[in-house]
Amino acid sequence: MDTLLFWLVPASSVLALAFAWYFHRQMMRQSEGTPQMQKIAAAVRRGAMSYLRQQYKVVGWVFLGLVILFSVMAYGFGLQNPWVPVAFLTGGFFSGLSGFLGMKTATQASARTANAARQSLNGGLRIAFRSGAVMGLVVVGLGLLDISFWYLLLDVVVPADALTPTHKLCIITTTMLTFGMGASTQALFARVGGGIYTKAADVGADLVGKVEAGIPEDDPRNPATIADNVGDNVGDVAGMGADLYESYCGSILATAALGAAAFIHSGDTLMQYKAVIAPMLIAAVGILLSVLGIFAVRTRENATMKDLLRALSFGTNLSSVLIVLATFLIMWMLQLDNWMWISCSVVVGLLVGIVIGRSTEYYTSQSYKPTRRLSESGQTGPATVIISGIGLGMLSTAVPVVAVIVGIIASYLFASGFDFANVGLGLYGIGIAAVGMLSTLGITLATDAYGPIADNAGGNAEMSGLGSDVRRRTDALDSLGNTTAATGKGFAIGSAALTGLALLASYVEEIRIGLTRLGTTEINVGGTTVPLQDATFFDFMHHYDVTLMNPKVLSGMFIGSMMAFLFCGLTMNAVGRAAAHMVDEVRRQFREIKGILTGETEPDYARCVSISTKGAQREMVVPSLIAIVAPILTGIVFGVPGVLGLLIGGLSSGFVLAIFMANSGGAWDNAKKYVEEGNFGGKGSEVHKATVVGDTVGDPFKDTSGPSLNILIKLMSMVAIVMAGLTVAWSVF
Amino acid sequence: MDTLLFWLVPASSVLALAFAWYFHRQMMRQSEGTPQMQKIAAAVRRGAMSYLRQQYKVVGWVFLGLVILFSVMAYGFGLQNPWVPVAFLTGGFFSGLSGFLGMKTATQASARTANAARQSLNGGLRIAFRSGAVMGLVVVGLGLLDISFWYLLLDVVVPADALTPTHKLCIITTTMLTFGMGASTQALFARVGGGIYTKAADVGADLVGKVEAGIPEDDPRNPATIADNVGDNVGDVAGMGADLYESYCGSILATAALGAAAFIHSGDTLMQYKAVIAPMLIAAVGILLSVLGIFAVRTRENATMKDLLRALSFGTNLSSVLIVLATFLIMWMLQLDNWMWISCSVVVGLLVGIVIGRSTEYYTSQSYKPTRRLSESGQTGPATVIISGIGLGMLSTAVPVVAVIVGIIASYLFASGFDFANVGLGLYGIGIAAVGMLSTLGITLATDAYGPIADNAGGNAEMSGLGSDVRRRTDALDSLGNTTAATGKGFAIGSAALTGLALLASYVEEIRIGLTRLGTTEINVGGTTVPLQDATFFDFMHHYDVTLMNPKVLSGMFIGSMMAFLFCGLTMNAVGRAAAHMVDEVRRQFREIKGILTGETEPDYARCVSISTKGAQREMVVPSLIAIVAPILTGIVFGVPGVLGLLIGGLSSGFVLAIFMANSGGAWDNAKKYVEEGNFGGKGSEVHKATVVGDTVGDPFKDTSGPSLNILIKLMSMVAIVMAGLTVAWSVF
Repeated sequence: MDTLLFWLVPASSVLALAFAWYFHRQMMRQSEGTPQMQKIAAAVRRGAMSYLRQQYKVVGWVFLGLVILFSVMAYGFGLQNPWVPVAFLTGGFFSGLSGFLGMKTATQASARTANAARQSLNGGLRIAFRSGAVMGLVVVGLGLLDISFWYLLLDVVVPADALTPTHKLCIITTTMLTFGMGASTQALFARVGGGIYTKAADVGADLVGKVEAGIPEDDPRNPATIADNVGDNVGDVAGMGADLYESYCGSILATAALGAAAFIHSGDTLMQYKAVIAPMLIAAVGILLSVLGIFAVRTRENATMKDLLRALSFGTNLSSVLIVLATFLIMWMLQLDNWMWISCSVVVGLLVGIVIGRSTEYYTSQSYKPTRRLSESGQTGPATVIISGIGLGMLSTAVPVVAVIVGIIASYLFASGFDFANVGLGLYGIGIAAVGMLSTLGITLATDAYGPIADNAGGNAEMSGLGSDVRRRTDALDSLGNTTAATGKGFAIGSAALTGLALLASYVEEIRIGLTRLGTTEINVGGTTVPLQDATFFDFMHHYDVTLMNPKVLSGMFIGSMMAFLFCGLTMNAVGRAAAHMVDEVRRQFREIKGILTGETEPDYARCVSISTKGAQREMVVPSLIAIVAPILTGIVFGVPGVLGLLIGGLSSGFVLAIFMANSGGAWDNAKKYVEEGNFGGKGSEVHKATVVGDTVGDPFKDTSGPSLNILIKLMSMVAIVMAGLTVAWSVF
Repeated sequence: MDTLLFWLVPASSVLALAFAWYFHRQMMRQSEGTPQMQKIAAAVRRGAMSYLRQQYKVVGWVFLGLVILFSVMAYGFGLQNPWVPVAFLTGGFFSGLSGFLGMKTATQASARTANAARQSLNGGLRIAFRSGAVMGLVVVGLGLLDISFWYLLLDVVVPADALTPTHKLCIITTTMLTFGMGASTQALFARVGGGIYTKAADVGADLVGKVEAGIPEDDPRNPATIADNVGDNVGDVAGMGADLYESYCGSILATAALGAAAFIHSGDTLMQYKAVIAPMLIAAVGILLSVLGIFAVRTRENATMKDLLRALSFGTNLSSVLIVLATFLIMWMLQLDNWMWISCSVVVGLLVGIVIGRSTEYYTSQSYKPTRRLSESGQTGPATVIISGIGLGMLSTAVPVVAVIVGIIASYLFASGFDFANVGLGLYGIGIAAVGMLSTLGITLATDAYGPIADNAGGNAEMSGLGSDVRRRTDALDSLGNTTAATGKGFAIGSAALTGLALLASYVEEIRIGLTRLGTTEINVGGTTVPLQDATFFDFMHHYDVTLMNPKVLSGMFIGSMMAFLFCGLTMNAVGRAAAHMVDEVRRQFREIKGILTGETEPDYARCVSISTKGAQREMVVPSLIAIVAPILTGIVFGVPGVLGLLIGGLSSGFVLAIFMANSGGAWDNAKKYVEEGNFGGKGSEVHKATVVGDTVGDPFKDTSGPSLNILIKLMSMVAIVMAGLTVAWSVF
């Protein structure tokens, strides 16, 4: 029965990929519109693909270096599991593949969406949303496929006599975490590189095109406009896909590892096995319900904007409600100990995601007071827009933090049987909550990836000179995407926090394995020795004195907080520099190429694309490498207590900083839109100019630095986990 | 010998006050200049004093409420030391008195400085600097006086038979910490209220006066100009005085408490006594050397700008070098165990302060690349100025964090005899480093308080229509103040971090006392019981499971990180709102009162002053109360582990956030000045306008939110310490 249930995991992953393929074929059958539309779409596609090729080349070198390092550690010094180098590579490969497939689909879909929008709003929605669904289903499908593959493989190759029977599953699950590190590393490059690309192009296009030359967004006379559209694809589609692929796999893998650890001394291998596959099963059921939800998104012809929103919400809400019921069902079938309360942890995760999403919406949508007040502050100029926007973003951190804390405590207490001392099961509950939050990723990611497709469709319509009614329809689709994106962001940030915590616990488990490999058989806990295989989380904490009064822990925490800021500073500056190059180039073209502004000559789009590409490649390396190096260095200097301090400091600061930046950025964006809707003087007024400054500042906040922090949090944990063998073996202090 | 040495403490505090009185008398003997100058000075003085009266009224109510609460806890439920309510009051009173005296002096000195500057630069420097020294000496003098008084009083009234002889000093020192909480509470209100006042007036004056009406800074036609000058006094003088009074006392008191705790089981009461008075002695010697340094600041007539800077630096450097030698001497005389290495911890503290100051200077002075590049980014408009400024500030957190970490580890290892397990002495070393950093506060605060006096002198000169050569001299004095202020800020932020850590340790000590009061005699540490009086830091950590895997600790840390952002968000928004009122009022006056801009009619200055006052009063209450309520609530919900998580989360995030905000703000200010010096188009150019936006955004960053964070960090610890009795007695989880 139980082993049969497991096969649901690979089956649903294959199903997800099959539906992705089906939606893609359906979309490809539509017409791409006029020759001009096809030409523009081809240019965007070419730019996006050439960027991705470049990026994967750079990432390839980094992977080569890391694989060599891991191989030396594993085969040369025995400091690491021999499967690490291979697992690391597949994680990176699948993450890259998700981004590639999602982006390819998005670039094929945009002109088709615009073309369909010539007939009706509903037609446009259908193509854009189903193409977004390709991305969502590819991510979850490849994720679960990779997990199933490794699980089955390691089950065969790991010897059953590792320490005790219960240790076998621990070794399997922690080995699988390294494939998470591959995914994280690729994701960080994708997010940072894509984020820099898209915002350099966007900021550059806005500053010269909109502000200086006074031409509208996506105007074909703007040389940076193709680069801007390419940017939406490489940043918002490929970057986000890689990001969420990583969150998805990370939360499932970390929870599986915690499940294995929670039952390590029970001797009950069956229950341990159930705890390991439970998160995979929840994810598998989530895939099925996501597909159902995607099919449920349909609306009548000539639907109003409100109908569209209702259609989208219906799909996601349906999936969410059903996953709650399905979780109870599958957990009951699995007969995992305490299954009812553990299912409640899943619900907690979903609720936390929804609360964070709602709070994001409240603080960033122009339907509510905060953003409207932000628009109003434009009456006293750009400086007050910036001050108020930063204030708003900082205030907006309160609700998500409280939600996450309530979520942590509730899911911990539920899973642990309301016993704080039952650390193993309690942490497992936190992991389960993260899995619950991401279980319907298939459809939430569809509504997310839908946004940039609609945005690009609008760009295509504008550049191809389609009528204003078509443009109005694509604008409506675009603005719908902004609303649904808020929820998606809530899930991305919330799951990062919970997954980060689960990974922290996995790190402790990895220490046990590292010590075993060094031949240690017992650890010293406050004067008494405890056999290594029986040591609890609590024992490890006390053995390494991971308490708040240990200066190594404190130092690690300061470094962790600083890392979050340093990383944001580096990415902000990268956008600033890359955007400045773009501004210079656009100004140069306006100056040197006669007839651009009158529309007689076509600007040199390709040059702008190549400037953004080069800028992003150059700038993404340093911040990404820092994220990898920091946990290694901290481990070498301060050992295990320092690394745990670093991770938790980075997690708590990074989480709050990420919310602040995402919400400030989102509010600035919509405050500008609110003015453009005709409030406080409308387009072209002084208030509008002031809010445009806010929007431009907000771009790197919400699309580069903020979302990259989500990955930073997890990547640092992943690196720590993979390098635990080294940290355990030697440190300066 | 040893008790004799103690008398150096009250003696030097009296000496400091005597010199303050002497410098004040000297300054008052100078002429206040023309009737117009006197009239303006009187208006500023009146505004400042009326503000302070209002503020003290509000603070008085808060104190009343807290004293009632403490009295109920102490006399009603026996949850607290009976001396707490009284000690709390004196701390608040002396902190307020420091602010009042410093500000009174500053408002009397500004016109006199301007008048002296009519003759020579040197004359102006002399008056401004010595008046600043009044503030510096009042702060350190009152601080040590209060400490001496309470120490002597409690030595008599605390019964010698408390648990063991070594517990007597523990009770004395932890009781004295509550007077630190009084000072912190008053300081937070002063910083937040003053910060909101000054920036509302400044932003309001700039936005309408400089940007819209195009009149220069401090122009008498600007209705907000008097309010702006009042703001410099209430924010930068009274606010900073209260802030540093609190840091100064906090670091000495926390270190004394740690000294008492470090020797609690040794039974060696003499050594314990020495450890308690060591920080006081270092501070006392620091006062003597500060006075010496102040007298060393002198320069020849017709000195150049460079000479002036050299004169100021000579004074502070002399004090710093001598304090190193004097520390070794006094520690040798005291014959404290391990005195040589503990003296090295003092040096570590001084060095950390200097490194942070230098790094602040590098990132914020227009003499270096970062700020020049920030000016350059103005070429692409205000948005890139903001993006680059935020990037710069975030990057600038790296060096101070590394400096503090090195400082923590070094001072810990020195004092503990290079033994990480010797937590008591190690933490004492961190406290000693904080005391070392602040030991020469008398002179560093003088160079700090000198800034706003010179600034106000410039305002007075402008409004009184003195010649452009006088204005040039006051400008030179003002810009000198900006340079020296960087170092001062480094010391303020660095000492907050170290003092915060020391307070954290005192909190653990307070838990012991709280448990004793509840009748507990032993605690459970991992299965074995340890007598309460013998329990080490380590034991308490393990008893309460204050490890990084405890969800209560993690929840506390998330709340702590969030508190830093929430607090900044509230203060940023407060400035935004108060400034908007000011903008409306200034616009109204320009519109309704005819002849203001032509100089025929005098604007209604008083109304602007009253708007700033009311705005600050209204807005300061919520953020300040939140800082007090958060640790209490966290304690009630999550108990001791939650509170420690909160404090350390707030400390690590708040420290990094404070540096980011202070440095971004400082760099924006100087980037604007660099443009005004004629670079990138100079005054009035588009680049200048872009950097003015940056400067305006930077105002609340560097003068409201950033510096208030320093106090927030310490106040939360102080509140936790004072409320420890309640937390220990009861919590939800």
